[in-house]
Amino acid sequence: MAKKKNVTFDDIAKYTNFSKTTISRYFNNPDSLTLENQQIISDALVKLNYKENKVARILASGKTEFVGIIIPDLYHHFYSEILDQILSTYETFGYKFLVFIGNENEETERRYIRELLAYKIEGMIILSHTIPSEELSKLPIPIVTIEREDEYVCSVNTDNYMGGYQAASLLSRHRCDILIHINTPTLEKVPAYGRLQAFRDFCTEHDLKHEVLIRELGHTYETAQPLLSDILEYLDASYRNLKKGIFLSSDTHANVLLNLLMRKYGRLPEDYLIIGFDNSPISREAVLPISTMGQQTDRLAFEAVSLLVDRMNEQKKRQPVPLDKPIHKVIPPVFFRRETTEK
Amino acid sequence: MAKKKNVTFDDIAKYTNFSKTTISRYFNNPDSLTLENQQIISDALVKLNYKENKVARILASGKTEFVGIIIPDLYHHFYSEILDQILSTYETFGYKFLVFIGNENEETERRYIRELLAYKIEGMIILSHTIPSEELSKLPIPIVTIEREDEYVCSVNTDNYMGGYQAASLLSRHRCDILIHINTPTLEKVPAYGRLQAFRDFCTEHDLKHEVLIRELGHTYETAQPLLSDILEYLDASYRNLKKGIFLSSDTHANVLLNLLMRKYGRLPEDYLIIGFDNSPISREAVLPISTMGQQTDRLAFEAVSLLVDRMNEQKKRQPVPLDKPIHKVIPPVFFRRETTEK
Repeated sequence: MAKKKNVTFDDIAKYTNFSKTTISRYFNNPDSLTLENQQIISDALVKLNYKENKVARILASGKTEFVGIIIPDLYHHFYSEILDQILSTYETFGYKFLVFIGNENEETERRYIRELLAYKIEGMIILSHTIPSEELSKLPIPIVTIEREDEYVCSVNTDNYMGGYQAASLLSRHRCDILIHINTPTLEKVPAYGRLQAFRDFCTEHDLKHEVLIRELGHTYETAQPLLSDILEYLDASYRNLKKGIFLSSDTHANVLLNLLMRKYGRLPEDYLIIGFDNSPISREAVLPISTMGQQTDRLAFEAVSLLVDRMNEQKKRQPVPLDKPIHKVIPPVFFRRETTEK
Repeated sequence: MAKKKNVTFDDIAKYTNFSKTTISRYFNNPDSLTLENQQIISDALVKLNYKENKVARILASGKTEFVGIIIPDLYHHFYSEILDQILSTYETFGYKFLVFIGNENEETERRYIRELLAYKIEGMIILSHTIPSEELSKLPIPIVTIEREDEYVCSVNTDNYMGGYQAASLLSRHRCDILIHINTPTLEKVPAYGRLQAFRDFCTEHDLKHEVLIRELGHTYETAQPLLSDILEYLDASYRNLKKGIFLSSDTHANVLLNLLMRKYGRLPEDYLIIGFDNSPISREAVLPISTMGQQTDRLAFEAVSLLVDRMNEQKKRQPVPLDKPIHKVIPPVFFRRETTEK
């Protein structure tokens, strides 16, 4: 770990015979110099083996190129997938990401945000549900949320309503006798509520026999399994000999139900159709590839970072123009037909 | 997004009638002031609504409290699990993490590291395999690696050899007729090579019939599945009516093989025993819970951050004492007996 003295603006000024102001302009507004002078300074940097000290630049420009991300958990495979996609935008936008897993600890999230603000991060992408968007909107940096309550902040969400509607419609076209929706308790203002609402609307509009089962499935496989096992017993008992079309609110839970069926019957019985949500990795890695209403995680991630970059650039202007109202981008879901709906 | 003028040390000095030096001492070495004076300044900060500007502090102290992490991918469930564990050390150590997914793009990793260095991050935890440890050891900040080649840098690894030895031993005690090890091509200097080496050693020492199958299983479920499907056909054909004990180098691949067996037979046949490696989430979420030689990801993560914090603290001393040689911590694996070895 060799320690070398850093090359300073002073050193560059002396070497090139320019003033320190000129050197500073080269870094902050290079186009204000002639191309020739830019070249002289650029050559000097190489000769002097100049290593940029970005901390000093941050103080000068207010630009850190750091963005904070808060993810609720990494148990739901959707979150590790979208985290992967957000981080991979580094090659496009150059922003570096400070990542935090909230685990529903609201106060720790607040502390983390306060800390990041003290470090002059430029913006945040928030997927965790704990802090209300009204509070987030008062932070002094741009915020973009993904798939959470977003009344007061910019957001990028999947068209959850379309997803729920299509899922119900598909199960109906497969001539299921009873349509079931399994979900966790979800507040109406959370985008994912659209999955439930659309399922209900479709079934009501088309006068289909249906049932919605809401259970607190928790944040681990171990909490979800006994509850879904009870649901399976209930369905087997209540709808024997009926073709059951089941739409679950996540692939993570669809996988648990599929495993229970495979263990009980050694196969997916003819009278069970399953559609998950997310197109997260588990839907492909399950014992049978699970049909799923896919979220386009790559597009959600790209649009969120892209929208955030727009807002962060606006903030850097001398007179940033505030938004009249938050921007909400909506990405359509895409259905992946796999083996759990092949009847 | 209200813009407010930041409160400076000058403002605090004026308000309290202390010198700027005293205010600076309050932030950097509070114990050098009397408790009474600490209280006066503390009250003033509240009155003035002072928001700490950490960027200014970084310049003064050289401390950013930022640590970089490079993960190879998020396909292998072990990586999302250990990332989760590393990030959760925030509450213990207060370090914030800049996360990057390498995806085997060596040059992008180098560029990312150069950028982070320019931002004066304090240290890095590296799990990706691309950059040789000799090169990493020349970086001007402490590095700790986890489960990768580590000759020239500090590291925390699982005792892979013990894991491989125990896995083979367990399959042998279950009176398997043939022991199989399935792995991807692994360099000898990578810690995970110990799994393969120990399997071979145990079988040779105990004169057991065994076979090692090395395949380039790739980085997706889709690349691994056809290769493991071929392996299953081969095993069914070559070792019919023999009790087969199969040790796979990761739970991610054990899950693929288990799914193939369940689809083919509707259950795990009596003559197949399976042990994975990692105790990653997929081993619990699989159609049958998979027996696995578990890595203690919580301990790996904690020890890695803890070791890194020690080295970062040393670097902050006026005369940091360099290490004579890198520290290598080793964490024992823990076997989780589940349903794929219950015969």
